[in-house]
Amino acid sequence: MKIDLNCDMGESFGTYTLGMDSAIIASISSANIACGFHAGDPQVMDKTVKLAVAHGVAIGAHPGFPDLLGFGRRNMDLNDAEIETALIYQIGALQAFCTAHGVRLRHVKPHGALYNMAVGNENLTRSIARAVARVDPSLFLVTLAGRHAARNGAIALEEGVTTLFEAFPDRAYTPEGTLLARRLPGAVIDDAETAADRAVRMAIEGVVIAVDGTSVPLDVHTLCVHGDNPNGVALAATIRRRLEAAGVEVGSVIRQVKHC
Amino acid sequence: MKIDLNCDMGESFGTYTLGMDSAIIASISSANIACGFHAGDPQVMDKTVKLAVAHGVAIGAHPGFPDLLGFGRRNMDLNDAEIETALIYQIGALQAFCTAHGVRLRHVKPHGALYNMAVGNENLTRSIARAVARVDPSLFLVTLAGRHAARNGAIALEEGVTTLFEAFPDRAYTPEGTLLARRLPGAVIDDAETAADRAVRMAIEGVVIAVDGTSVPLDVHTLCVHGDNPNGVALAATIRRRLEAAGVEVGSVIRQVKHC
Amino acid sequence: MKIDLNCDMGESFGTYTLGMDSAIIASISSANIACGFHAGDPQVMDKTVKLAVAHGVAIGAHPGFPDLLGFGRRNMDLNDAEIETALIYQIGALQAFCTAHGVRLRHVKPHGALYNMAVGNENLTRSIARAVARVDPSLFLVTLAGRHAARNGAIALEEGVTTLFEAFPDRAYTPEGTLLARRLPGAVIDDAETAADRAVRMAIEGVVIAVDGTSVPLDVHTLCVHGDNPNGVALAATIRRRLEAAGVEVGSVIRQVKHC
Amino acid sequence: MKIDLNCDMGESFGTYTLGMDSAIIASISSANIACGFHAGDPQVMDKTVKLAVAHGVAIGAHPGFPDLLGFGRRNMDLNDAEIETALIYQIGALQAFCTAHGVRLRHVKPHGALYNMAVGNENLTRSIARAVARVDPSLFLVTLAGRHAARNGAIALEEGVTTLFEAFPDRAYTPEGTLLARRLPGAVIDDAETAADRAVRMAIEGVVIAVDGTSVPLDVHTLCVHGDNPNGVALAATIRRRLEAAGVEVGSVIRQVKHC
Repeated sequence: MKIDLNCDMGESFGTYTLGMDSAIIASISSANIACGFHAGDPQVMDKTVKLAVAHGVAIGAHPGFPDLLGFGRRNMDLNDAEIETALIYQIGALQAFCTAHGVRLRHVKPHGALYNMAVGNENLTRSIARAVARVDPSLFLVTLAGRHAARNGAIALEEGVTTLFEAFPDRAYTPEGTLLARRLPGAVIDDAETAADRAVRMAIEGVVIAVDGTSVPLDVHTLCVHGDNPNGVALAATIRRRLEAAGVEVGSVIRQVKHC
Repeated sequence: MKIDLNCDMGESFGTYTLGMDSAIIASISSANIACGFHAGDPQVMDKTVKLAVAHGVAIGAHPGFPDLLGFGRRNMDLNDAEIETALIYQIGALQAFCTAHGVRLRHVKPHGALYNMAVGNENLTRSIARAVARVDPSLFLVTLAGRHAARNGAIALEEGVTTLFEAFPDRAYTPEGTLLARRLPGAVIDDAETAADRAVRMAIEGVVIAVDGTSVPLDVHTLCVHGDNPNGVALAATIRRRLEAAGVEVGSVIRQVKHC
Repeated sequence: MKIDLNCDMGESFGTYTLGMDSAIIASISSANIACGFHAGDPQVMDKTVKLAVAHGVAIGAHPGFPDLLGFGRRNMDLNDAEIETALIYQIGALQAFCTAHGVRLRHVKPHGALYNMAVGNENLTRSIARAVARVDPSLFLVTLAGRHAARNGAIALEEGVTTLFEAFPDRAYTPEGTLLARRLPGAVIDDAETAADRAVRMAIEGVVIAVDGTSVPLDVHTLCVHGDNPNGVALAATIRRRLEAAGVEVGSVIRQVKHC
Repeated sequence: MKIDLNCDMGESFGTYTLGMDSAIIASISSANIACGFHAGDPQVMDKTVKLAVAHGVAIGAHPGFPDLLGFGRRNMDLNDAEIETALIYQIGALQAFCTAHGVRLRHVKPHGALYNMAVGNENLTRSIARAVARVDPSLFLVTLAGRHAARNGAIALEEGVTTLFEAFPDRAYTPEGTLLARRLPGAVIDDAETAADRAVRMAIEGVVIAVDGTSVPLDVHTLCVHGDNPNGVALAATIRRRLEAAGVEVGSVIRQVKHC
C-alpha cells in the first residue's frame, strides 16, 4: 500500500520569503513548485528544484494565474487559449530547471483559483489538460478527488493526459464529496492527530468521514500537506509518521498509475 | 556558400502589436522569439512558433531583461545567478512551445541591453553561456561578430556552448570591428541596396567596410534583419534576393557549424 | 443645450503605441486617461495630460484592473478593499500629473471589465464610489446610462459622489436600456452618420432607438467616442460636427451638474 | 535640540509580509512608505498610512525603480524623463492615500539603488528634485548627508526643492564622509548602544567618527533606522531612548527647516 504526500513549494519571490520549504521537504514525496506567475521567480525555482532533487522528491509544476499581487487566489476570466498558453509557458519554464538539475518533471498541479475553478468546469479542465498534453503527455495532472473527479479525469484523458486525484486530510468534506468552504466553521482541521487519522483512512480505506458523519468514498492518489507555517509542517510530519506506522508507504505513485 | 538571416520576432504583448512578423518571415531562415520578459506573452509565443514552423524557419529563444516597460533596452545590474536563472526560465518557456509544435529549439540570442552588455563582458557572457548549457548544450548562442567575438566564443565554449557570430548589414562599423553607436550620424543604413552590398560582402568575403574605408574582417554565421517597420521588411527582402543572386544560399548554418 | 464627448486615451505602454490620441483630441471635451494598471505608463500619462491641457480638454482618471496582459478586459474577482485601494492608487497617480501640469482632475471613469462589472453591481459600485470620495468628493464618477443608472447613481451619492451618465452612440441598445452584447450582430455601429444621428437624439431628446425599434429614455451627460482606429476618429469628428450643427454645444457638463 | 528618526515602511506586497512596521512605528517620527514599484501595494499603502497617522508620524513617499523582483536594489539605467515621471507617479499614488486619511505628505526619500545612484550624480538628483517640485515644491527631499550633500542640496534647490540630510547611525563612514561599502568588514554596526552613541553624536555634535578614527562633520536632519528585523527594531528603540536621555527631542524637523 502506497500514497503520495505533496506540498506546494517555491512560493517565495525576490526578497520576500514564504513557506518553510526546507522543513517540509523531509515529510513529502512530491513537490509542486510555483512557476513565476502567482509566486516564485527564476532563482527560487532553481533553488527549489535543487532542494527537491537533494531529497529525492518528485517534482511537479504548480502553475497559476498571472496575478502575483493576488497570489493566484483571485478568480480571473481567461479564455481557452489564454489558459492553455499560460500553462505551457509555466510548465516549460519549470521543465528547464528540472533539465538543469538532471531530473524529469513528473506532474502538473494548478494553483489556487485556477485549481478551484477547474473543479467541475469541463472547459477549463480541458484547456489545462490540453496544455499538459502539448508539452508532455506523460506528465500527470493533479486534480481534486471527490465529486467531480471522475468527470475531470475523463476529460483530461480525452486530451491524452492521466489524472492523479488529490485529497486534503486537514479539510472538512461535505457528504457530496466536496471541500467544505473555508469560511465555514470547522472547515480546516488544525489538530495533527485528527488530520493523520483522516489521512490514514483516505490511504487505506479510500474514504473520508463527512461533516454529517457519513462515510464518503474518495479515490485518492496523493494527499496535500502545507508548509507555509510551523503547524502545517508539524501536521505533515505527523501524517507521514502515522501513515508509515499504519503500513502505508509514502512515495510517488506515478509508477503505479497506468497511463490510460 | 551559405549564410543565415535572422530576425527578432514575437515582440507583441497582449493587445499591443509590434513587428511585421508575417511579412518578414518569408525572407529569413532563423527567428529569435521573445520570451515574455522584455516583450512577448504566452499566446504570442505560441503563434510565433507556429508561424516559424509553417515557414520552415529555425527557432531561437530571444531572452531579455525583466523590463517590459523599457522593452529590455535599459541596462540592469543583475548578478550572475539572476542572469543565469532568468535565461533558463525564458529558454524553457519557449522550448515548451517548440515541443508543443513538434520542433526543436535551435539557438539563443539575448535581447537588447542584455546582448549589448555581454559584448566584451566576460562575466556576463559566462553566465549567459552557462544558462544555455544547463538547459541544452546543443543550443547555439548568438553573439556579436567582430572585436570581442573570439573571446566571447572562447568563454562560451568553456561553459560547453558553441557560438554563432552575428553581423548587421544595416549598421556602420568602426575600424575596430565594433558597431558605430546609434546616436552618431550614419550609424544606421536605410538604403536597401547598400545594405545588401554589405550583406553579400559579409557572406562571401567575410569583411565589412568600416566608416574610415578600411576593410575589417568579420567571421559571420548569421545576418540580422529587422521586421519592425516596412522599410526593414523591404530591406530584408532585398538582402535575401541579392544574396541568392550572388550564389549564397540563405539558411540556418547550424548543421555546418561543428559543436566544438 | 450641451453635451460632453469623452474618449479613453493614454493607453500606450513603453515601446507599444495604441490609439490615435493626437487625432481624436480635437473632437472631444473630456479625456479618460489610463493610469498604468491596464494600460498607460508614467511617461505616457505625462504626455497625455499635457496633450489634454493643450487642447482645453477636461481630464479624468481611467483606472482599471491590474492586468496589463489582458488590457483590463478580463473579469477579476477583487474584494472591496482591493477595489477601493486600487482606485485610490491610480487616481492619485494621475492627479499628480494633473498637478504637474497645473490643472485639476475632474472625473473618474473605470475601464473595461471593471466598468462593465460595476453596472448593476451595488457592492462594486459602492467600492468604486468610496475610492473616489476618499480622494476627492468633488470628482465626478462616470457610469453607464440606462437600465441601472439611477440605482448606481444613488449608491455613489450615498458615498458622497455625483455621477455622470454615459451613452455610446456607436452601440446598439436593448429595449431594457442595456448595451447589446458585442458578440451579437449589429452590436457595433460603424457608419458615422448613423452614429451621429443617434448622438444627436441622445443629446437633444434623451432617448435611443433600441434594436426592436422602441424609443428608450436615456439620461445622458456624456457620449463616448473611440480613438483606437481611423474609423473611430472619423466617426467622432462627424458626431461633433453633427451635434454642433444641431445646436448642441460640445463641452464638459461638469459645471452644469449640481453636486447633490 | 531636535532630530528626526525615519524608517522605510510599507514594503509588504500581496500575501508577502516584510518589516515589523507596527513595532518600529513607536520609535520613529517619520515613515518613508513604499509606493508599489519596488515594494508595497495599494492595500499596504492604505494600511501603512493609517498606521503612521495613528502614531502621529510624518509621512513621506519612498519611490523606487520599477523592479519588484529586485526590490529596487538593482541599478537601472533610466533616462531623465523616465526617472521624473516614475517619481511623479509614485508620489501621487501615495499622496492620494494621505488625502484619504486626512493628512499631508511631507517628504520624499528615494529607495535603494535610486537613492544610492543619486548620491553625487547631478543629473539624477536634478530629475528627482524636478519630479518632487512638479508635484509639490513644499515637499522635502531626503538625501544622504556627507560628502556630496551640499552639492545635491544645491541642485535640488535650483529645481525649487529643499533637502533634508540623512545619516545612518548603524553604518560605518569613511574619512571622506561616505558610507563604507556594505561588503566590507565592519560596515554595519549591530550593537545597539554603539549605534546609539553615534546617533547622539550625530544629533548633538553633527559629527561621525570615521573608520580611521577621524571626526567627520555631518550636517544631519534625520537619522535612518530599520524595521525589517527584531534587532533593527530594538536598535531603533535604544537610539530613541538614548537621544531623549541626552536631551534631544525626536520629531520631524520640517517646521524647523526653512524652505530656501
